[in-house]
Amino acid sequence: MVELLVIKIGGNIIDDEAKLSSFLKLFAAIDGPKILVHGGGKLATQMAGKLNIPQKMVNGRRITDAETLKVITMVYAGYINKNIVAKLQSLHCNSIGLCGADGNTILAHKRIHPDIDYGFVGDIDSVNTSFLKTCLSNEMIPVIAPVTADKNGQLLNTNADTIAGEIAKAMSNLYEVELIFTFEKSGVLLDVNDDSSVIKRLDKNYYEQLKHPPSVSEGTKIFAGMIPKLDNAFAAFNSGVKQVRIGKAEELDHLITGTKGTLISNEP
Amino acid sequence: MVELLVIKIGGNIIDDEAKLSSFLKLFAAIDGPKILVHGGGKLATQMAGKLNIPQKMVNGRRITDAETLKVITMVYAGYINKNIVAKLQSLHCNSIGLCGADGNTILAHKRIHPDIDYGFVGDIDSVNTSFLKTCLSNEMIPVIAPVTADKNGQLLNTNADTIAGEIAKAMSNLYEVELIFTFEKSGVLLDVNDDSSVIKRLDKNYYEQLKHPPSVSEGTKIFAGMIPKLDNAFAAFNSGVKQVRIGKAEELDHLITGTKGTLISNEP
Repeated sequence: MVELLVIKIGGNIIDDEAKLSSFLKLFAAIDGPKILVHGGGKLATQMAGKLNIPQKMVNGRRITDAETLKVITMVYAGYINKNIVAKLQSLHCNSIGLCGADGNTILAHKRIHPDIDYGFVGDIDSVNTSFLKTCLSNEMIPVIAPVTADKNGQLLNTNADTIAGEIAKAMSNLYEVELIFTFEKSGVLLDVNDDSSVIKRLDKNYYEQLKHPPSVSEGTKIFAGMIPKLDNAFAAFNSGVKQVRIGKAEELDHLITGTKGTLISNEP
Repeated sequence: MVELLVIKIGGNIIDDEAKLSSFLKLFAAIDGPKILVHGGGKLATQMAGKLNIPQKMVNGRRITDAETLKVITMVYAGYINKNIVAKLQSLHCNSIGLCGADGNTILAHKRIHPDIDYGFVGDIDSVNTSFLKTCLSNEMIPVIAPVTADKNGQLLNTNADTIAGEIAKAMSNLYEVELIFTFEKSGVLLDVNDDSSVIKRLDKNYYEQLKHPPSVSEGTKIFAGMIPKLDNAFAAFNSGVKQVRIGKAEELDHLITGTKGTLISNEP
């Protein structure tokens, strides 16, 4: 099977023009089929603030009401997505910006939760692998914004890590998929304040150990914010994705060759 | 040659949810290859107002500064484009939303003008007909937002009527193209206040007569705002587009069968 790279770029990089530019140069230079999934960054929150749209949080999660969805659609699927695509085109990478509705790439449904109404938040039902394959076969590189739609045409805010994981899983029926999560850190860190403390290889047991250390120590602190990303990483790795790696956006070339970042593994 | 419909939907329809919905149902029901080009509507102006971005007008034309371009990209290529695509998907029309940068669909350059700096406004250099053909051959219906990019990755605000005309002209090398401009009126009207005064057939001589009536009469009033649209219509008609028609969005089916609206013609 042909290799396919599915690469997620995190919001913090998108907020930083110089880092984003370095990343896009590395991304554009990759040979062969590749898909880029991008996060949202702080721009949507800033825009909601400027528009006086109050942001409701329940249990630390953002609730996407109709006005917030409008902002998210504008910022993620409009401003961020089109700027990335235009920059990639200028680097001779023939990209095409997509939200889940475009080409029916990702079908989702509004999140059903027994206690919390998350509003217009989407959970993924299916990925249109044949459409993505058509894009790739025609040398169009999909650049995917974290906005999906349900079958009734309702747009939905959807987590970009989850989108990257679901695309990687679905495409592994057609390609040998390598999934790379990139962000501002050098990998999964043992000490979140020490960028040199990269865990080179992380298997499920070690991950469980780090999440639930035997004694109450600083262990659990390591994974602040990393748990959903790692859960996605392990879920993808256990569902046919050949390799999952996590690391720094500006080191994308080294992540691809395997010389940097954290490798999700089934051996210690 | 296979027939291709290139349909422009104007901003006033986009601002009206019921009219937009009627139009999209008719558009979704059309058999065969088709391309939708949409305008911007009032939402961008409203959004600029809410964000306290002053809108500069020079000789009645809007100047697109960097902040205005951001709003336009968000609203046109994000909010409006993705909502249209999601609605079309729910109507089983497999559409794909594009700005000029996506798939390098439209390459443009920043407008050069001896006296006025229009800011980030794009004039079209070329249309990527082979990409649009690939979309159509794979039964993906392009939905095009009025935002283009130059070869350096700079996004540019671009007139939707011009985009529709240029796409129609370029695609007429590959298809028998029919171009339809839809808006809130029933066609080109002899009396702008009388929706039943539709000019059924408009040739160049009659158009010139109406633009420059022999005596100063109410004649010139007819074309308020219609002149750029009609100039685009005639330019397309004179450059290989087989048929050009102008009429009401909610009468799209009748415009296609030729029973309503104004036909651009080379005979009186």
